[in-house]
Amino acid sequence: MNSKSSFRIDPMTKTLPIIDTVSALRQQVNAWRTQGHTIALVPTMGGLHEGHLSLVDLALQHSDRVIVSIFVNPTQFAANEDFSTYPRDIKTDAKLLQQRGAHLIYKPLSSEMYGAHETTRVIVGKIAQGLCGTSRPHFFEGVATVVCKLLCQASPDVAVFGEKDYQQLLVIRTMVRDLSIPTKIIGGKLIREADGLAMSSRNQYLTKSQRSKAPLLYKALQQVVDIVEKGHSVSQSIKAAKSQLTNQGFVVDYLELRDADTLDLVNKDTRPDARLRIFAAASLGKTRLIDNLAVSNLEP
Amino acid sequence: MNSKSSFRIDPMTKTLPIIDTVSALRQQVNAWRTQGHTIALVPTMGGLHEGHLSLVDLALQHSDRVIVSIFVNPTQFAANEDFSTYPRDIKTDAKLLQQRGAHLIYKPLSSEMYGAHETTRVIVGKIAQGLCGTSRPHFFEGVATVVCKLLCQASPDVAVFGEKDYQQLLVIRTMVRDLSIPTKIIGGKLIREADGLAMSSRNQYLTKSQRSKAPLLYKALQQVVDIVEKGHSVSQSIKAAKSQLTNQGFVVDYLELRDADTLDLVNKDTRPDARLRIFAAASLGKTRLIDNLAVSNLEP
Repeated sequence: MNSKSSFRIDPMTKTLPIIDTVSALRQQVNAWRTQGHTIALVPTMGGLHEGHLSLVDLALQHSDRVIVSIFVNPTQFAANEDFSTYPRDIKTDAKLLQQRGAHLIYKPLSSEMYGAHETTRVIVGKIAQGLCGTSRPHFFEGVATVVCKLLCQASPDVAVFGEKDYQQLLVIRTMVRDLSIPTKIIGGKLIREADGLAMSSRNQYLTKSQRSKAPLLYKALQQVVDIVEKGHSVSQSIKAAKSQLTNQGFVVDYLELRDADTLDLVNKDTRPDARLRIFAAASLGKTRLIDNLAVSNLEP
Repeated sequence: MNSKSSFRIDPMTKTLPIIDTVSALRQQVNAWRTQGHTIALVPTMGGLHEGHLSLVDLALQHSDRVIVSIFVNPTQFAANEDFSTYPRDIKTDAKLLQQRGAHLIYKPLSSEMYGAHETTRVIVGKIAQGLCGTSRPHFFEGVATVVCKLLCQASPDVAVFGEKDYQQLLVIRTMVRDLSIPTKIIGGKLIREADGLAMSSRNQYLTKSQRSKAPLLYKALQQVVDIVEKGHSVSQSIKAAKSQLTNQGFVVDYLELRDADTLDLVNKDTRPDARLRIFAAASLGKTRLIDNLAVSNLEP
């Protein structure tokens, strides 16, 4: 094995090495392992922003070598969703990753992820139901399946996922635990713009007017969290927050208080010591935004 | 890590080392890898017979160290099936494996395979439909899920499965390919008793009278294969073979000619160069027997 031949600066972006096959990925991972390095994977769909880059920082804290995968995963998009328009700009992404200190970009060919006869799906069960699992019924099946493939392809010691997609993080933790995948899953904090809007690749879809309204979603979550922490009625405050968002032009998919570990809805059966978290999804025009916020101060 | 402490002759069976946790398994596998050894896994549910032991032989040809897992997997049994009565005799199994040259028995605790909150399932799709997938609707979901766990736990270079469970072998090959699991799957030939009965742990359920009739299933397959190889009508010969079996007291679940690679039913659209295989499942009393036989002489 000639590890150097598979680890060259990409000639098109002139930044990091970019590889696109499982065999080249495994060759590089094996070479690093032989050198005694630990390896992290940061799975992304590209369209990178500070949220993703903070995950690269976290990955660098936990391992010697950081692979960032960039793959817009078709199985997690429904037919009416934005698969074809999702941001794809490898030159910008590669430059950002180089600046941040990542070591390798894995941008697999579609055929490496979904071969012609591919039929297998990973179904994670209860934790994938409710919230985004209700409005996007095949979303978590697509996410779990592609992440399972990526983890089996890269065999990383750790993999890093953002808390912006909090339910997704729990789905992946559940899958990795249940299937005994030998990778440690690390969650990275949600990163916000200065005005509070949760960073997302989809924010660039927003018109100027929508962009100015978008931080109201976070403000609505903050309001509910304040009320809950003061011990006041949750249902009233959620109802009020939803109304405010609707009045401002949002179409609210959900705004719900849930157990941060089980994602069970909070009700009279909720353990008194449960960590709580408020979750929201709402659309402005065609752009779907999600956000979440911890309630108790137990959250680190 | 003290690899010796986890690799002792089992004090109860006085044969091979037997370990029952993922962490002990990984400790041993890592120790072997450090020593430069390649590793094979032979997944079984115990009740070992010459069919299983031939898979150990095959595993020894392909790797330096052979782990045999013994786990009666609850998720592949329906409520009315024989989970509780399935043969469990670790002393006999361990002695047979020692004689055959296996290196380690992995007999995981139930909690290592299915934790209290476990919910994830691997669904392999089309190849798991039809044949046993019709009469045992959750069977292959349970098989794929438990094999995915075992492969992630042991990280073997190769894993060996028998062609007795031919559809199961294809389900596992499909899962491993689709999820990019870094293990090579090797199929081992079906082993028969002297009178032609395919070896199975379930054969010990048969009464003396049933046991004497059981080889008729293989004879029925042979008859159909003869007819097909002579170019005569398949449907007539299958109908005749089913009638004969029914007259002898079998309850026939299926007896079908299929493409050996895709498991598609053979019809006018079947490629002329397709490898064909005949598959059967039939019960004698409460005991379900399965068997299969290659048609073309392309089969090695």
